[in-house]
Amino acid sequence: MRIAVLGTGMVGRALAGRLAELGHDVVVGTRDPAATMDRTEPDRAGTPPYREWQEQHPDVRLVPSPEAGVHAELLVNATAGTASVEALTGAGVGERAGLVVLDVANPLVFTDDGPALSIANTDSLAETLQRAFPRARVVKSLNTMTAQVMVDPARVPGQHVVFVAGDDAEAKATVSGLLGEMGWGDGRVVDLGGLAAARGTEGFLLLWLSIAQAYGTFDLNIAVHLP
Amino acid sequence: MRIAVLGTGMVGRALAGRLAELGHDVVVGTRDPAATMDRTEPDRAGTPPYREWQEQHPDVRLVPSPEAGVHAELLVNATAGTASVEALTGAGVGERAGLVVLDVANPLVFTDDGPALSIANTDSLAETLQRAFPRARVVKSLNTMTAQVMVDPARVPGQHVVFVAGDDAEAKATVSGLLGEMGWGDGRVVDLGGLAAARGTEGFLLLWLSIAQAYGTFDLNIAVHLP
Repeated sequence: MRIAVLGTGMVGRALAGRLAELGHDVVVGTRDPAATMDRTEPDRAGTPPYREWQEQHPDVRLVPSPEAGVHAELLVNATAGTASVEALTGAGVGERAGLVVLDVANPLVFTDDGPALSIANTDSLAETLQRAFPRARVVKSLNTMTAQVMVDPARVPGQHVVFVAGDDAEAKATVSGLLGEMGWGDGRVVDLGGLAAARGTEGFLLLWLSIAQAYGTFDLNIAVHLP
Repeated sequence: MRIAVLGTGMVGRALAGRLAELGHDVVVGTRDPAATMDRTEPDRAGTPPYREWQEQHPDVRLVPSPEAGVHAELLVNATAGTASVEALTGAGVGERAGLVVLDVANPLVFTDDGPALSIANTDSLAETLQRAFPRARVVKSLNTMTAQVMVDPARVPGQHVVFVAGDDAEAKATVSGLLGEMGWGDGRVVDLGGLAAARGTEGFLLLWLSIAQAYGTFDLNIAVHLP
């Protein structure tokens, strides 16, 4: 599949690298590829410069956002949630009727009073994107875990899960297929129904951050136990 | 321990019955005990009348809220989240310096656009109670699962978990002790730190509702998996 990943951070890199490894034709889209490649210092979050990752992944091309939008049969939103509408607009998502948008982002903001969501409770980032790009088919998934677990569920033992939510069944099936290729098989993909369920999976971010703090690692995931 | 449970619904009954069974001196507090005992029909949620439960639990006395407040060494808030401040005020919690309040409630509301929280994201019910009753010691726990699982974790297999959050270490230890008595031992009690972590456990409600819908049952809980 021709896949465009928007976002050059850890999440975008992890997904782009893994999807390319699986044989997909992957580009990473960003506003200014030259500026991204020119950086030689880690960013504020400590993420190493993109050029180092690029050297190890010559099969993944870094392209301007509009080119990424044209390339995409499926577009992955791995940008910061607070910048996602602008980023997808820049990639021309508004003009791509039927495009599957896999939204893995969270609308996380840091306040003086701790982490919070810029959209929450009665709305979600995923629904905001769907409203902004009504001709796209937005599917929310993978946003409940850290990047390394997204692309390699086997690194965490046991039958832990990934959620999908979206209003278009075919788009959800496409995303579930990709999840299966990345190792999310055997009943691990939990379909939560329509896109409004993203309110729950995005809202989980605050609990996830607390759990990660309690255990001292982001390298974890949740499982659902039933009698 | 002398325990008062505020709330006569399924959650209050489950906790009161279980804590009494464990040997604690338990009362259930409500605004108008006579009115509660007079009801002969199930409520809107289909909960059977309280008198039926009362007949099966003669060791648990139903008392007016102020009497429950006086009785309590530990008070369990099992009222509807939207009514909790008023209920705790009625029980005189404001006058009980040092009282441990185990808050198991969620500020759930049903809107035309689905379930939502009346307090969320940058605040929580638990913090609202702590601000309303600054001399109490509020501990948030058990609000991430259905009543039957709260009081009998063994009904769900595996190492699933319960979260605790609170600003007072001693109060959290008291609550963790009670959780242990109810079957939450062996590393299943996950301490998320201060009471602000209740934003995460209350926010989990929306995801929990979606998960329950996906599996067709509320009889479930989550586990945390680590490498």
